[in-house]
Amino acid sequence: MIILALDPGAYIEDLDEWLSKIIDETKDLVVGYKVGLPLLIAGGLEAYRTVREKAPNNLLIADLKFADVGDIMSMSIDHLSKTGVDAVIAHSFIGYKDALDKLSMKCFERNIKLILVISMSHRGSEEYIDRHVNEFIELTDKTGAWGVVAPATRPEIIKNIRERIGDRIKIFSPGIGFQGAEPGTAICHGADYEIIGRAVTTSSNPRERLLEILEVQREVIERCKRS
Amino acid sequence: MIILALDPGAYIEDLDEWLSKIIDETKDLVVGYKVGLPLLIAGGLEAYRTVREKAPNNLLIADLKFADVGDIMSMSIDHLSKTGVDAVIAHSFIGYKDALDKLSMKCFERNIKLILVISMSHRGSEEYIDRHVNEFIELTDKTGAWGVVAPATRPEIIKNIRERIGDRIKIFSPGIGFQGAEPGTAICHGADYEIIGRAVTTSSNPRERLLEILEVQREVIERCKRS
Repeated sequence: MIILALDPGAYIEDLDEWLSKIIDETKDLVVGYKVGLPLLIAGGLEAYRTVREKAPNNLLIADLKFADVGDIMSMSIDHLSKTGVDAVIAHSFIGYKDALDKLSMKCFERNIKLILVISMSHRGSEEYIDRHVNEFIELTDKTGAWGVVAPATRPEIIKNIRERIGDRIKIFSPGIGFQGAEPGTAICHGADYEIIGRAVTTSSNPRERLLEILEVQREVIERCKRS
Repeated sequence: MIILALDPGAYIEDLDEWLSKIIDETKDLVVGYKVGLPLLIAGGLEAYRTVREKAPNNLLIADLKFADVGDIMSMSIDHLSKTGVDAVIAHSFIGYKDALDKLSMKCFERNIKLILVISMSHRGSEEYIDRHVNEFIELTDKTGAWGVVAPATRPEIIKNIRERIGDRIKIFSPGIGFQGAEPGTAICHGADYEIIGRAVTTSSNPRERLLEILEVQREVIERCKRS
């Protein structure tokens, strides 16, 4: 139940080698990979294709945090669809009209799953985003979203989402590891997948680190089921 | 007073040729270029470098609509700083703590100007973003932002921003051309630059089209000054 975020630092010299090592060591242990702006900037669409080739059976999520007008996001999807990504993440905040309406149509057309950000893991999410959580949850219906993002650092929001939308939507939770939440916490509160990144990718032994995290996740979920 | 947005459609086969033609025909007529996600996805960082090389004296704005946690945006800036972009655009709605605070520090460190989105040109901007316009304007102080984005389609917001922040910040206005506002409208209401994209870049004669737009812009600004 782990999605691994592949965000390379600018200090990485051989991106291909970095991707190969991490993917080879982890692809049998994770559900999928999340690739974002740092990887796109560092390696272009070619880097996304590399991940797709090296992990053909894992879920591949392009986390570009889409937050633009509908036409521009649609153009981006047209380009992205050439890489075989399975899903994209967009912000609910940009609204429906001429934004998420067009994006969701384009995703449907290109057979790409849409995941909406409902809340984020950092403290600043409380300043504006979190004031609209219930409105954002309603957008999942309008857009036919396949999944949502809600942080492990605010489990009460995950619980709220699960109660409101039932089982029809996947919940992805960032915020474990470097950002402070214990592995398993989000799943315990109703999330389907936990997203982890730098705690694994900056480790000298990614596989070992990931196995440790999976072990904690299992324990926390077990404890949670019993309580 | 025009910034040209370079957003290539997925149908463009030779990106280099497309960029060369448009930049050669327009660089003496525009203040700068805005490059976003479609160009990054289509051509990688190399495409950004191409724009920088072909237009060394124009302002170059990376419009990736940053809307992520601070550490991830900072990683993106580290990568981007290798291309010589002058400025980046980020969303205000991600908030200050662990988001815009870190981004603004990183921009300062890398000598890149920060531009914050206060409002957008599409209808969906009214659903959530526009409800926080005054709060977003306050963020310009906290982040030391160099500029803001506010749409030509909602000139009363431009007027509001200019009245509140005086002349210390540049206002960039999308929404003219394809999105419906008349060139000159935003500047008339207090903007510094108008952003135009597809009306020029999809024209068979970009230079001619741009000259027509500049002519309308001049007329509208003249009329506005007299009234």
